[in-house]
Amino acid sequence: MAAAAKVFRARGFAAASLDEIAGNLGMSKGSLYNYVSSKEELLEAVVGPPAEELLSTLRGLAAMDLPASEKVRRVTRIHVSVLERTYDFAAVYLHEVAGRGLGEEWAAKDHAYVSLIEEVIASGVAEGLFAPDTDVLVSAMALIGALNWLTRWWHVEGAISASTIAERISDVFLAGLLVRSAAKEPPAPAG
Amino acid sequence: MAAAAKVFRARGFAAASLDEIAGNLGMSKGSLYNYVSSKEELLEAVVGPPAEELLSTLRGLAAMDLPASEKVRRVTRIHVSVLERTYDFAAVYLHEVAGRGLGEEWAAKDHAYVSLIEEVIASGVAEGLFAPDTDVLVSAMALIGALNWLTRWWHVEGAISASTIAERISDVFLAGLLVRSAAKEPPAPAG
Repeated sequence: MAAAAKVFRARGFAAASLDEIAGNLGMSKGSLYNYVSSKEELLEAVVGPPAEELLSTLRGLAAMDLPASEKVRRVTRIHVSVLERTYDFAAVYLHEVAGRGLGEEWAAKDHAYVSLIEEVIASGVAEGLFAPDTDVLVSAMALIGALNWLTRWWHVEGAISASTIAERISDVFLAGLLVRSAAKEPPAPAG
Repeated sequence: MAAAAKVFRARGFAAASLDEIAGNLGMSKGSLYNYVSSKEELLEAVVGPPAEELLSTLRGLAAMDLPASEKVRRVTRIHVSVLERTYDFAAVYLHEVAGRGLGEEWAAKDHAYVSLIEEVIASGVAEGLFAPDTDVLVSAMALIGALNWLTRWWHVEGAISASTIAERISDVFLAGLLVRSAAKEPPAPAG
């Protein structure tokens, strides 16, 4: 799985070959076929487990009795933590699969994930904690985009720790950039 | 360019072939070689113009005398507007190039883009409009991630207009999810 994840990540799924993956493992393509029957099966084996882990943890979280703001913080922590532990695998999922219309099963996972985040945000609006004019879908996708973009710039071994990243992303989504004491942003100049 | 963008987007750059692009244009691969000498050159021709347009518009914006909150709104509008007009091209850039370490020239463009957004956010902190504890880098990358993820779920022909998307994304980054009258989020429960 790790060898496949590295090749998928470096080459992209479409250009990756079972030959190269087998070669990196010091085995023939024929031997690799004893374990998997196709590149698609290998992709599913690589990205299925982190995707399932993320989904099942989020399902548990959504059902908990917590303020929505705390759920948003935990969503970002769970996401970053899965990313931290399964970086190469998650990067393949995010670069190759998420939102790219690869097939019904993946679309269903994407949809379940988005729905759980929407549910958390909608519950915050319902409980009066989040602004009543919150656009639930766009806010959910903005948060998901911010989290999923991490594989393009943040590295587990880098200067910013996973826990710091998670808190800072939560901060900006919950509190916004504007100072909290500002009643509203300054008016846009005319024109 | 449009034919190349469609093939790059559908297959991914690594798996796309000049044969298929030439075929879609009803010409031979040999004829296509009269115009471009490699797939890399074609990628640059496809994604270079929208990337350059975005960068030069943002440079102009960063230099303007406007409150940082208005600059954030304009950044999202410019980004969504370039996406709207060059959807297939921008999607190829975002799926294949941005943050994927393809080479120095692309890395320089990525870096210039990120720096401009950081500059806008830092100026908001400096002028006291944005919270003093704002994490400039993480906030900039969260905004960029939210914008760049649009090609995975939002379509120009879909139910949500480009201008609505831009305003809603600005809203959540500027004001945050929490109602503005809330002094702070509720405390996290122990444990």
